[in-house]
Amino acid sequence: MEKKERGKGVTYPGGFLASGMHCGIKSKKINDLALLFSEAPCTAAGTFTTNLFKSYGLMWTLKNIKNPVQAIIVNSGNANTCNGEENYKHTRLIAEELAANLGLKPGSVLAASTGIIGKTLPYEKLLNAIPALAGRLSAKNHAEAARSIMTTDRVMKEYQVDTGIAGRHKEVVIGGMTKGAGMINPCMATMLGFITTDAVIDRTALQSAIKEAVEDSFNMVTVDNDTSTNDMVVCLANGTAGNRKIRKGTEEYAQFLSSLKEVCVNLAKMIAADGEGAGKLIEVRVRGGWCRKDARRVAKRVAGSSLVKSTVYGCWPNWGRILAAAGSAGAKTDTKKIEVSMCGVMVYDGNPVKHDEKKLRELMKKNVITIDVDLKKGRFQATGWGCDLTEEYVTVNKE
Amino acid sequence: MEKKERGKGVTYPGGFLASGMHCGIKSKKINDLALLFSEAPCTAAGTFTTNLFKSYGLMWTLKNIKNPVQAIIVNSGNANTCNGEENYKHTRLIAEELAANLGLKPGSVLAASTGIIGKTLPYEKLLNAIPALAGRLSAKNHAEAARSIMTTDRVMKEYQVDTGIAGRHKEVVIGGMTKGAGMINPCMATMLGFITTDAVIDRTALQSAIKEAVEDSFNMVTVDNDTSTNDMVVCLANGTAGNRKIRKGTEEYAQFLSSLKEVCVNLAKMIAADGEGAGKLIEVRVRGGWCRKDARRVAKRVAGSSLVKSTVYGCWPNWGRILAAAGSAGAKTDTKKIEVSMCGVMVYDGNPVKHDEKKLRELMKKNVITIDVDLKKGRFQATGWGCDLTEEYVTVNKE
Repeated sequence: MEKKERGKGVTYPGGFLASGMHCGIKSKKINDLALLFSEAPCTAAGTFTTNLFKSYGLMWTLKNIKNPVQAIIVNSGNANTCNGEENYKHTRLIAEELAANLGLKPGSVLAASTGIIGKTLPYEKLLNAIPALAGRLSAKNHAEAARSIMTTDRVMKEYQVDTGIAGRHKEVVIGGMTKGAGMINPCMATMLGFITTDAVIDRTALQSAIKEAVEDSFNMVTVDNDTSTNDMVVCLANGTAGNRKIRKGTEEYAQFLSSLKEVCVNLAKMIAADGEGAGKLIEVRVRGGWCRKDARRVAKRVAGSSLVKSTVYGCWPNWGRILAAAGSAGAKTDTKKIEVSMCGVMVYDGNPVKHDEKKLRELMKKNVITIDVDLKKGRFQATGWGCDLTEEYVTVNKE
Repeated sequence: MEKKERGKGVTYPGGFLASGMHCGIKSKKINDLALLFSEAPCTAAGTFTTNLFKSYGLMWTLKNIKNPVQAIIVNSGNANTCNGEENYKHTRLIAEELAANLGLKPGSVLAASTGIIGKTLPYEKLLNAIPALAGRLSAKNHAEAARSIMTTDRVMKEYQVDTGIAGRHKEVVIGGMTKGAGMINPCMATMLGFITTDAVIDRTALQSAIKEAVEDSFNMVTVDNDTSTNDMVVCLANGTAGNRKIRKGTEEYAQFLSSLKEVCVNLAKMIAADGEGAGKLIEVRVRGGWCRKDARRVAKRVAGSSLVKSTVYGCWPNWGRILAAAGSAGAKTDTKKIEVSMCGVMVYDGNPVKHDEKKLRELMKKNVITIDVDLKKGRFQATGWGCDLTEEYVTVNKE
């Protein structure tokens, strides 16, 4: 019964196995090391932080992403960044040891880290853990892996979809796991995303699809050019579905991209909703943008405004803060026609709109708060996500 | 005894009077209306918000700043922004009424507001208060005025300096008052600054000086292009010192600019230190910038990073967050040579620097935390200010 053995998240597509464990990086006895493995070599693609300081794991991954990839090792609890150059050598040692254990070349192993910057990576703990980590690889252990990459996350984050693209062996599917907790400056929290698919897909097509999907999902939570030292989203395609090779510009490409976006958007929303100390997800839907960039700017600015976040936390419809944020986003706006709604209630249309404030305050007690902004300048749209700002955020981050 | 009658802050320069009172905008019986008056017509100059939505008072001021100005009326508790176009008419009515009372033309009255966006300005309360407000004008009432422009500020903010520039009647001096409380996104809090001087100065020179002084002071707390709907800094020069007219490029101009910067920097630091819920001032001094913009970007990014702010609050020297912020500022940086010190203790020089962490944690308990960053790319410098991030910030802003 193949169905029973099939996993979820990153092991939902055929041929992917995962595992996770505690290797000793974190002082608490919780998972801090994950492994993702594909039985067949993968075409890999990804998007990476633009921060000038980069994690050594990320550097190793950048060097090897164009190889036929079969494994990714991820640790939490230590960022492996700005901790001295010897840590790059240790990262390579870990990849070599893992490759030897799995019967691969070192260059087919990628690495990622998340945690505190500037601390020496206790690489011997990782080396010692490799036999056990590899030994536990299974399609069933997707959740163990997802839990191993968490830092301040309160919940593990997985998602999977069927693409509807038929293959010789099976339908093409996509799965993924992510970590990251939306913050005041969501930009500064490490965001890791690992996406798997059993599609046969051209490298150019895969790179193009992951770039576009990330732009409309993770990047609408994390602000461009302002990412942490460790951020990365990597997508592995192992081709085991046996579909006709997906190339850019084809119908299958559009179908694949749409499913990939679905996975990324759902994972991104989980990040926003799991903001440090957060209780609510804020979804900012912008339309009427003069260009796509304008719509994106406003969506991100409003979703990221500390004052808007505080307003949502306090369930107080202080919509002036939405206008102030929109007006400072550097996007074309018709200030005499701009429309703003909160929770579906229009509050501004170039002038304040009379509304039942008491009812709106009731609506704001929900877990998902939608804010709609129509810039009245064009036809472009974008959606951004954020979370409310609570006292607990500060408590989490002061240590 | 002229010395005794002389004021401080905005009434420190000769010929300036001020007053403040409660007119009923705020529900609590605290000051919400201020008036600044010059016995002689002033050359005026200023810098204004780049937000697309603008307060009606600010619009009125923009229209009249090139006139010979003699008065500025400022209310707190209501932003007079996005509250319907009739409020512009009401703003004009207030200026007309005040001008009539003071024997001026309406165009020589400027206006400013700070408070909640989207609420109708109770203009009749302002109109009714004008006789009392004008009646209380005095050099002694500078503090009343400074208190009347406060919103979430915990302390009123005034500063004054002597320029050393001799005049026919007296030495040229500069005074000022400001309001604003540094926030997580300091950009979104209204910042008002009113600077007065008895200098005789050319309009071009005054505009150039105030622009440069604001860039190195208030704009290093407030982020460019990201200002509130109401932000403004206005400088009035009434010429009563009788000095030789200050023109750009002269020695007196350099002297005047240096004193003006001193006033603005000290007022800006008061804003940062009075951050909502804040307990500490963070001063980020950047050197080694490839250009001035780079140095400024890094200083602002580090001072504005929520994670750095949380670290300072927790007295925990998590210097990796400083590097992560610096690396994402979009500035050229030598990542192998960059130097970072906290409270004078070097923590990174391209590699982690061994230091006495316990001692550093003790040093971080002080009220002013300095962070030094040397980008090792050139000779440009900049200083930025921020405050720590506390649970109280959220409490203040959720309502």
